[in-house]
Amino acid sequence: MSAGLLDLSRSSRFQQTLGLELPIIQAPMAGSQGVALALAVCNAGGLGSLPCAMLNLAQQREAVAALRAGLGAGSRRPFNLNYFCHLPPTPDEARDAAWRAVLAPYLAELGVDASASVPAPARAPIDAATAELLDELRPPVLSFHFGLPEPALLARLRSWGATILSSATTLDEGRWLQAQGVDAVIAQGLEAGGHRGHFLSDDLSRQLGTFALVPQLVKALDVPVIAAGGIADAAGVAAALALGASAVQVGSAYLLCPEASTSAVHRAALASEAAAHTTLTRLFSGRPARGIVNRLMTELGAMNAAAPDFPLASAALAPLRAAAEARGSGDFSPLWCGQNASGCRAVPAGELTRALAGLS
Amino acid sequence: MSAGLLDLSRSSRFQQTLGLELPIIQAPMAGSQGVALALAVCNAGGLGSLPCAMLNLAQQREAVAALRAGLGAGSRRPFNLNYFCHLPPTPDEARDAAWRAVLAPYLAELGVDASASVPAPARAPIDAATAELLDELRPPVLSFHFGLPEPALLARLRSWGATILSSATTLDEGRWLQAQGVDAVIAQGLEAGGHRGHFLSDDLSRQLGTFALVPQLVKALDVPVIAAGGIADAAGVAAALALGASAVQVGSAYLLCPEASTSAVHRAALASEAAAHTTLTRLFSGRPARGIVNRLMTELGAMNAAAPDFPLASAALAPLRAAAEARGSGDFSPLWCGQNASGCRAVPAGELTRALAGLS
Repeated sequence: MSAGLLDLSRSSRFQQTLGLELPIIQAPMAGSQGVALALAVCNAGGLGSLPCAMLNLAQQREAVAALRAGLGAGSRRPFNLNYFCHLPPTPDEARDAAWRAVLAPYLAELGVDASASVPAPARAPIDAATAELLDELRPPVLSFHFGLPEPALLARLRSWGATILSSATTLDEGRWLQAQGVDAVIAQGLEAGGHRGHFLSDDLSRQLGTFALVPQLVKALDVPVIAAGGIADAAGVAAALALGASAVQVGSAYLLCPEASTSAVHRAALASEAAAHTTLTRLFSGRPARGIVNRLMTELGAMNAAAPDFPLASAALAPLRAAAEARGSGDFSPLWCGQNASGCRAVPAGELTRALAGLS
Repeated sequence: MSAGLLDLSRSSRFQQTLGLELPIIQAPMAGSQGVALALAVCNAGGLGSLPCAMLNLAQQREAVAALRAGLGAGSRRPFNLNYFCHLPPTPDEARDAAWRAVLAPYLAELGVDASASVPAPARAPIDAATAELLDELRPPVLSFHFGLPEPALLARLRSWGATILSSATTLDEGRWLQAQGVDAVIAQGLEAGGHRGHFLSDDLSRQLGTFALVPQLVKALDVPVIAAGGIADAAGVAAALALGASAVQVGSAYLLCPEASTSAVHRAALASEAAAHTTLTRLFSGRPARGIVNRLMTELGAMNAAAPDFPLASAALAPLRAAAEARGSGDFSPLWCGQNASGCRAVPAGELTRALAGLS
């Protein structure tokens, strides 16, 4: 079959464009990693990603400085900064109160003071102030989730030549992203862990598995396609390239690496039989995301409409989550994970990156 | 990467065991194919499959005779007979009446006499009488859906050395099938068209996409794994083998072949933009199956609980479907299709089989 040769040339071209040694992108995982993981992947020849949605401007500046320092002066290794592009929701007090009422019995059970303030992750979309910072920092790669920034903002971000990536969950989304001028499309198959990246339709039945999404996007688009979802080892990478992908994006497999900041309860779940059963849930943030099924998902129903819109659902959960985690329980935590946790290994991220690329 | 060599040896071993030239199995598709399609695939070097769940014993005998005649005297090419293993439901008149009431407005709209009797497909599970016939016919391969026949019946079917295959939608199902002694497990990824083969749990959230299911089953099992779901062309076959599969099972891609008996409305839908949106529905049979979204699914909700248990839901739909199809409408027909219809081509099935294997 000639497919293999073709794919190798696709991935080689993509690597050349980005200055990447390996066709491996580490998926940005807000809440489970920072600079350390991204840096380890970059230094192994992959594309490390820094999730920025929960960092303020000062933290972003500091993180990029740390990344650049870790890469070494004059390094040409690329890195990726990831941002969300959701429309901020209108706060709705009645809905928030209803959500708190749903959670009240759990707070009572754990003896948590409902009025206690626990900092909840504030997920902000990219904005003009961020663009101003990025214009100064000039990261080589920017990836987006939930679509793209509005056109004027996107044009500004493109002005210094950053490579722009965004996720598609359907063919329509892939075509839309290409029309907006992205440099490559991440095909986020339904197997992927964490937040679904959809932005044109909320109908989850439209979203395709990796094996169906990748080849159809490859056929439909002119830009390179990056496969994501269910890729856990070198065989998975080889299979994705055989489907026509130019590179892969891997998330879950990195969650047990020492450089990740994955919580103890999350690590325990990933390493257990529980990781065999994930599902999409909107309980933890208000948007569908794939995680390991836990008590809250089982008892409330993973897609329960009572959870306020993204990202407001998380605030009321924060004290509950903190109290449970302090007792070693992940009953109320988002245990993000894709459908294939078999690649999760507690090894250095650089070693994992090279193993994914078939080197050892 | 050494993965490629390993996979080639896996598929070669599987082909040798079955006496197959190519690692391609044509998925049995009851209602859309008979002997002609299976024969064309067998004669091209793949494994053709004959769906038997809707055939009575005389029809099965006749079909096998036709297959053998078509293969030629003394042919060693294998073929596969496929059977269902569901527990027949208890008829429930009240539920059936409620279902007919749900459908009544559509019957009125199309001017169909609700009391008119239209033959509906009777899907029967394999039983002792079938085993007696098979003991005489001795087909080389038997595949099952919805689990396996009960142990005594299975032992009888194995007595002449038939290769036994069945579908798994989860790791648990794969392990269970191996423990029952199957010769290979079909990993039915969530992308696959037609009926989901699950039998240990009705929880659809437990079912995995092809990219997650295949490699995990390959790791967990000793028997060969056959990948199914989303595989539409030679690149898909190469990718499935890279994931560790020993062969692939392809369904949707064959539905436009002249040898298939796919209805005109079904062919039109497969060749249209509509094929981009499939979902799981229980409306047409009572069990979840993937098909192209049509009017009935949109208006009633694809998983509407009003449809009686498998296979009873289909009877009340039969006159509606017949009347609509006579007018060229697939509004009330099951338009089975996987998530990747990009491989559907109106070419002879032998040509398609060779193309899937990377020959042309």
